[in-house]
Amino acid sequence: MNRTANQVRLGILGASGYTGAELLRLLARHPGVQIGALTAEKNAGNSVADIFPHLGGLELPRLAKIADTDWDKVDAVFCCLPHATTQEVIGKLPKRLKVVDLSADFRIEDPELYAKWYGHPHQALDLQKDAVYGLTEHARDKVKKTRLCANPGCYPTSALLPLLPLVAAAQIDADDIVIDAKSGVSGAGREAKLGSLYGEVAEGIHAYGVASHRHTAEIEQELGHAAGRPITANFTPHLMPMSRGILSTIYVRLANGASAADLHATLAKRYAGEPFVRVLPIGQAPATRHVRGSNLCLIGVFADRVKGRAIVMGAIDNLVKGASGQAVQNFNIMHGFPETTALEQQPMFP
Amino acid sequence: MNRTANQVRLGILGASGYTGAELLRLLARHPGVQIGALTAEKNAGNSVADIFPHLGGLELPRLAKIADTDWDKVDAVFCCLPHATTQEVIGKLPKRLKVVDLSADFRIEDPELYAKWYGHPHQALDLQKDAVYGLTEHARDKVKKTRLCANPGCYPTSALLPLLPLVAAAQIDADDIVIDAKSGVSGAGREAKLGSLYGEVAEGIHAYGVASHRHTAEIEQELGHAAGRPITANFTPHLMPMSRGILSTIYVRLANGASAADLHATLAKRYAGEPFVRVLPIGQAPATRHVRGSNLCLIGVFADRVKGRAIVMGAIDNLVKGASGQAVQNFNIMHGFPETTALEQQPMFP
Amino acid sequence: MNRTANQVRLGILGASGYTGAELLRLLARHPGVQIGALTAEKNAGNSVADIFPHLGGLELPRLAKIADTDWDKVDAVFCCLPHATTQEVIGKLPKRLKVVDLSADFRIEDPELYAKWYGHPHQALDLQKDAVYGLTEHARDKVKKTRLCANPGCYPTSALLPLLPLVAAAQIDADDIVIDAKSGVSGAGREAKLGSLYGEVAEGIHAYGVASHRHTAEIEQELGHAAGRPITANFTPHLMPMSRGILSTIYVRLANGASAADLHATLAKRYAGEPFVRVLPIGQAPATRHVRGSNLCLIGVFADRVKGRAIVMGAIDNLVKGASGQAVQNFNIMHGFPETTALEQQPMFP
Amino acid sequence: MNRTANQVRLGILGASGYTGAELLRLLARHPGVQIGALTAEKNAGNSVADIFPHLGGLELPRLAKIADTDWDKVDAVFCCLPHATTQEVIGKLPKRLKVVDLSADFRIEDPELYAKWYGHPHQALDLQKDAVYGLTEHARDKVKKTRLCANPGCYPTSALLPLLPLVAAAQIDADDIVIDAKSGVSGAGREAKLGSLYGEVAEGIHAYGVASHRHTAEIEQELGHAAGRPITANFTPHLMPMSRGILSTIYVRLANGASAADLHATLAKRYAGEPFVRVLPIGQAPATRHVRGSNLCLIGVFADRVKGRAIVMGAIDNLVKGASGQAVQNFNIMHGFPETTALEQQPMFP
Repeated sequence: MNRTANQVRLGILGASGYTGAELLRLLARHPGVQIGALTAEKNAGNSVADIFPHLGGLELPRLAKIADTDWDKVDAVFCCLPHATTQEVIGKLPKRLKVVDLSADFRIEDPELYAKWYGHPHQALDLQKDAVYGLTEHARDKVKKTRLCANPGCYPTSALLPLLPLVAAAQIDADDIVIDAKSGVSGAGREAKLGSLYGEVAEGIHAYGVASHRHTAEIEQELGHAAGRPITANFTPHLMPMSRGILSTIYVRLANGASAADLHATLAKRYAGEPFVRVLPIGQAPATRHVRGSNLCLIGVFADRVKGRAIVMGAIDNLVKGASGQAVQNFNIMHGFPETTALEQQPMFP
Repeated sequence: MNRTANQVRLGILGASGYTGAELLRLLARHPGVQIGALTAEKNAGNSVADIFPHLGGLELPRLAKIADTDWDKVDAVFCCLPHATTQEVIGKLPKRLKVVDLSADFRIEDPELYAKWYGHPHQALDLQKDAVYGLTEHARDKVKKTRLCANPGCYPTSALLPLLPLVAAAQIDADDIVIDAKSGVSGAGREAKLGSLYGEVAEGIHAYGVASHRHTAEIEQELGHAAGRPITANFTPHLMPMSRGILSTIYVRLANGASAADLHATLAKRYAGEPFVRVLPIGQAPATRHVRGSNLCLIGVFADRVKGRAIVMGAIDNLVKGASGQAVQNFNIMHGFPETTALEQQPMFP
Repeated sequence: MNRTANQVRLGILGASGYTGAELLRLLARHPGVQIGALTAEKNAGNSVADIFPHLGGLELPRLAKIADTDWDKVDAVFCCLPHATTQEVIGKLPKRLKVVDLSADFRIEDPELYAKWYGHPHQALDLQKDAVYGLTEHARDKVKKTRLCANPGCYPTSALLPLLPLVAAAQIDADDIVIDAKSGVSGAGREAKLGSLYGEVAEGIHAYGVASHRHTAEIEQELGHAAGRPITANFTPHLMPMSRGILSTIYVRLANGASAADLHATLAKRYAGEPFVRVLPIGQAPATRHVRGSNLCLIGVFADRVKGRAIVMGAIDNLVKGASGQAVQNFNIMHGFPETTALEQQPMFP
Repeated sequence: MNRTANQVRLGILGASGYTGAELLRLLARHPGVQIGALTAEKNAGNSVADIFPHLGGLELPRLAKIADTDWDKVDAVFCCLPHATTQEVIGKLPKRLKVVDLSADFRIEDPELYAKWYGHPHQALDLQKDAVYGLTEHARDKVKKTRLCANPGCYPTSALLPLLPLVAAAQIDADDIVIDAKSGVSGAGREAKLGSLYGEVAEGIHAYGVASHRHTAEIEQELGHAAGRPITANFTPHLMPMSRGILSTIYVRLANGASAADLHATLAKRYAGEPFVRVLPIGQAPATRHVRGSNLCLIGVFADRVKGRAIVMGAIDNLVKGASGQAVQNFNIMHGFPETTALEQQPMFP
């Protein structure tokens, strides 16, 4: 493919993981981009098809080391590197490059909080200052202007989309939120880990990171912004046998006289016209299989039998709206493309 | 197999479903029983091996209609019939037969509550009076004396085993309980239903029966007994891609100054010596795959980051401790066998 | 969506099954079509979103009965009806409508063979005469001119694409072909059948229809055309736990001095330039997960250790290249659209 | 558990893998053994419950290094070590210990063949001479007398049980055998490998080790013994999404006027009375899910439509009859226990 004049030349750092591959799958249909550089330290020298045969039909540059990448040929970067490595690498990139970072490195605004949750001081605080937490539907104006978009985590995306409007409207008690989240295995990345083996995951479920998962930090940060005060929330992730998908079932206490119907009205109004957020009729449960492969978030609202309580749910594909899809959505905003470009595909079911 | 003098002659009503097959799998190693009659209305005339090739090695009577069964050859009955049919059938059985009923028909003590949740008046209220709710670890003495044991539902078993001691000890607020349960598909039975198809279940998760699932009735009934007053609790079941297993993640508010460690101590003490309930060290999460095929319930306890809250979890195999295994356990008690007979097998992993 | 002047107005008959849904997923991105009518006898009156929530974002007509469909508003039809019903329905459609039929009804040229395999005489032999067996890469010219395209079965597509060029080149012995095929469950359709339940399929595999599966008829018919004489072949399908995908592992005897490398060369040459058939380097195995959601067929070729033998493999997504995707491909040819229209998406992995 | 006088004191070398865990699951119900030593180099110091929570209820010695094991406390050994390590370790064990070795190290009689398939010269040829290939039903007398039983591979077990009697009877052409095998993931062991990740295995299938898998060596060796001359056979393994199970679908050419019915008769007669081999009625397909967790091998026989050909199938649980179960079976024979001891459990379905 020859580049046309108005195409953005893209680099993807860490292209040999699941989010890198997903970016390539989505961007293959983006008329406004050309892939100029792909990096993968361990797999440098290989073609993408060597690593990901499903992408064997695309014309793409070979995987190279970051050190060997010619940044003159790149206008913008998606960064899919592991935590901590990211801040080091991004700090050294030419400042003219726009960056969508899929790691957690620039999501936490408070350096102390970052250090507490991630176990070491942040190494690029100057960049952190300019970073924008890119939960697109709640950050469009900021994303439009930023150079560095911190793409939200998968769990936070599934929980914050339903929760933020309700907390902002003070229709729920922000101090009494329970987020029970169920995730597919691709969220753990494409690393050879015992806990991600088929035999360890198939036909079972268990909670992990109880009261200690790092995504709690960004969930509480954003809930705090919506509430106007610090919030502590329960977030309990579970690992279950599916490759893609997150369902967050969220238990809330109603506040200020609101009913479940009021919650539903708030969410329906807030997300009316949003191309990627769909609020289901009250009492209808979202299923992860109905968003698979798409950038959609489905939201459900239920009255509880317990007086004064309600249940809200958010379902996403963790690799799309929870990672690469939202990254493309943010990229589109940052570069002036229609927001839905390359994200138009329907979910794939079954 | 020739019957020995002291063997109990068993009938299984509704032997062509998953719980019937599971009873046969377990009872194949019970030295004190002989299978005398197996019924299955639609499959009458077939052998068990025709329906369940995995049981092809057992010597068993052919499946017959209930109407064609000679009750003189039977001392006790496991009833695996669908709801409502059960009360009609059991009502007509000879009164000398001891019954473990795996349906919901005799679990609800209050006839009005039964009618409300199940949509019709109970048809065998005289039997209901004598029925015992057989959550074994909390009902041994009653089970020993009863003729009719109402075997608990799968979801209630997974939730009540962790919750009852805590409510009884008033260490948690019984009015603020959230039960987020995840179940395998066999809980829906072996019926050809669209929602149970592989293509509709694999690689996804969704909630169902939100604020309306019938198991809520027995959960609240038993919590109410423990609390000494009526209790309303949140119970939200989810369907996920596994054949066996239920994990209930339960969010509770601490009461009367109790800590998560106190909860753990209460549970550890309560279940010390129980052969089928294992309380894990505090902070360790139970996994359904570690109980698969066994009669075990694993219990986990966690402190929450949210002040004043804790998380408890119960994991079972829905077909064993949640159905046929607990039924055998109750049967053993009713007939004077050691409680663990035929339930000694280890879980199967992977 | 308003129809533009040059759009084809489409009807989909039997739109509530998996192939109907898959057509809608693919056609949502076809600029040259407008969906004018959707039929579903049992689900008439419902919206597509009621049946398939994953398609909830599309503007589509309601499902209606065939009898209530206004054919004046339709230019072409995809027929996803069950076997036998199809020939009856298509026979009554206005003759001006172009039809792509996804059933087996018009695939078998010989009426006696049809009657033998399908158990009843064909009811629309006049139509059968004009029908074209639409294995696209081997039937383009005929498909271009036909009014009635019989879309190939999923299994035959996966086996014939690798086999036809080899039989035609007489590089393999057409009388010594073994096709061991493994299929996902969606091939059985969206019917509530015991054998398609999650609990009956997950974590296992078994053969079915051994030496009796109806797809054998079309496999042998097309192999016979390529060989120039009647062929009998082994075809042994297996059901395994995946929603989508077919892998046919085909064991062949080399003929006329050909080597595995010769087979590979023949296939590579035959399919060079084909947008949807990709012949892998010799010795590389195709995986169904690398075609998931796409219209691709991956072909692998291996030398066997057994002298004079080779192994060829074909992998497809049974719902795309094996059904709805190939149907769109044929539709594109019949109506003069570029053949890849609406089929450009990359496979989805994981 | 205190040891009783007649109990065999067992050591399990490499107890932290799947076959080690499976041995412990099975042996937990063996009245004649006491576990005296468990080794695991990397996990030394841990309890079994740390590694395998599902075995948390068993009283077992801690995992230790081989170097720290007191062999005076052990009468017999199961060896679950990786290939090559095994021959080194076993060579150093006291000669009085009886050994069942689950690795491939002592399966190949011909040292040259071993070196060719395994890529290095055998390091313990003196031991190899005394080793017996322990396909139990075909090696009982030898197993009874040996000190070192080489437990067969999982794939070979599934293929040889159906094939050996047919080759020995010369009812099939031993030079025209195609073995298409489908395996669950646990066959790859409990190692953190990319190819065993849930995301890489779920919802897909692919062949691997085509014309190069090492199990070919023992398949051909045993077929050769049955045929009385060297045999080359096709063996094509596939990896599919299940934790346990192997199905071998075997395509054969009839010889000496035999029919499929003759094949069936030969197998039925050969395995009549065998507790762990069940020959299904002709035309009935074995399913892996019907042997799950048990030591059974199900065998199916089919006439092919292709003249002069037939299809035979073998289904096993790769971790039981394909590994630890057959190992216990051999152990029982070596030590004079009834052959079925600790192997009585029924398969677990679903």
